[in-house]
Amino acid sequence: MTHHPFDAALHLMPQNSTPGSFAGTTSPAYENMVGPYGGITAAVLVQAVTQHPDCLGEMAALTVNYASGVAPGPFRIVATPARTNRSTQHWVISLLQVNKAEVEETVITATALTAVRRDTWQANDMPMPNVPGPDALARTRVNAPMQWLNRYDMRFVQGEIPQAMDGQGTDSLSQLWVQDDPPRLLDAAGLAALCDVFYPRVYLRRATRVPAGTVSMTVYFHASTAEMAEIGLGYLFAQAQAQVFRHGFFDQSAQLWSQSGTLLATSHQLVYYKE
Amino acid sequence: MTHHPFDAALHLMPQNSTPGSFAGTTSPAYENMVGPYGGITAAVLVQAVTQHPDCLGEMAALTVNYASGVAPGPFRIVATPARTNRSTQHWVISLLQVNKAEVEETVITATALTAVRRDTWQANDMPMPNVPGPDALARTRVNAPMQWLNRYDMRFVQGEIPQAMDGQGTDSLSQLWVQDDPPRLLDAAGLAALCDVFYPRVYLRRATRVPAGTVSMTVYFHASTAEMAEIGLGYLFAQAQAQVFRHGFFDQSAQLWSQSGTLLATSHQLVYYKE
Repeated sequence: MTHHPFDAALHLMPQNSTPGSFAGTTSPAYENMVGPYGGITAAVLVQAVTQHPDCLGEMAALTVNYASGVAPGPFRIVATPARTNRSTQHWVISLLQVNKAEVEETVITATALTAVRRDTWQANDMPMPNVPGPDALARTRVNAPMQWLNRYDMRFVQGEIPQAMDGQGTDSLSQLWVQDDPPRLLDAAGLAALCDVFYPRVYLRRATRVPAGTVSMTVYFHASTAEMAEIGLGYLFAQAQAQVFRHGFFDQSAQLWSQSGTLLATSHQLVYYKE
Repeated sequence: MTHHPFDAALHLMPQNSTPGSFAGTTSPAYENMVGPYGGITAAVLVQAVTQHPDCLGEMAALTVNYASGVAPGPFRIVATPARTNRSTQHWVISLLQVNKAEVEETVITATALTAVRRDTWQANDMPMPNVPGPDALARTRVNAPMQWLNRYDMRFVQGEIPQAMDGQGTDSLSQLWVQDDPPRLLDAAGLAALCDVFYPRVYLRRATRVPAGTVSMTVYFHASTAEMAEIGLGYLFAQAQAQVFRHGFFDQSAQLWSQSGTLLATSHQLVYYKE
């Protein structure tokens, strides 16, 4: 039995009354400003799909829409295989919570694709940047009270949160080594969570702190379960950059590599910012 | 009344029996190899959301999962606002068809975000490449029988389908000018369709034709309805490139700009390939 806080946060209880319905509770260990870190929410959706008795294959794609803030406390996930083909399966997922008026509301909508992986021709056209290894870098101490930040060992190569919020930002690229703290064997849920590890690009681009939050995240999983097991413990190299900021939303593209340079996941976000 | 084939393909009839349910039919004018062009399917989902009487704001994000091939003929779209906030709204959408066994099945799953756009600080960190304009280039004649190819005037700057499928491909970048044929005023549905205009990157990267098809596409819409109306008619500049090919799937990142260099949409796909 594991005692890693990540696995504790992923604990789901199947509700026998409704197929594909799972009960869970948010974890204080992964608290963000208000409610849980978006990455842990993505991970628990992966958990619901992969522990569903009808699940075919491994995670290939996930889109999570943060329709509202997840409130600390209990939630319910409903994961439904909407279409099952020979080697792929499409999922529709929602996370629901009972609000103060005792009404159950949709808080997260999501879709996922699982697939039986095959060996095919392969190519990595996005090689890992040539950067110093994690041992050559100090752990970045983030001066912020959110609990989830303590769950990750982050070592920035570039693009830390600006020390001076002086409006003099010039680009939005962050590059860092990251691993769970304590370390945890890599799997699809862990990888999904790591895809959301980047603070809002608008802070960096503007060197200005404005209210911001992810409204949609997509993750494409390129590593098989076997490849992730082979990686096991260790730092991943993670990179994120925005393309455009307009009308209160910006996008973000991210890549995560294993330390040996395998591109494990590519990810995208649309992020709200206030002004 | 318009007679553009795109608008004809988008024609949906609200089914009064079920809120958010719309009946449509695939358009022969946008036929792909088997069934409709994926872009027209994305567009008709946009149409369902934006013509829904409860729709709040404009398209901001769309994820379409091509769970199965859309068969030529009638379909039904169900678009449900799962969560409505003050200025954003999250949609869950499905496209269904009655199969040969007379059973209605899910063919497409999708989610969307609509939002009331506001004026905010803005920046374009992905400027349009410096390329010859559309008038300096000849229309590319694609030697393929699919009807949808006739619906777009494409003028490649680079990355046409290789003339010689000789296995000597080196990269996956395509850059082209594109507009509807006949020209059509730009809107969110038209932009969604244009995001799928790229042939499978694996053809180009390998200079080898292998069975391939999009399984999931995400579009982030960065232009307001007013900005799109201002653009009106004219070519867009479109670019797509893969990052990684592995285990039968590759990803693709795409950007679409107006001729004056406004980044209108960023888009991503996960695409199946056979071997």
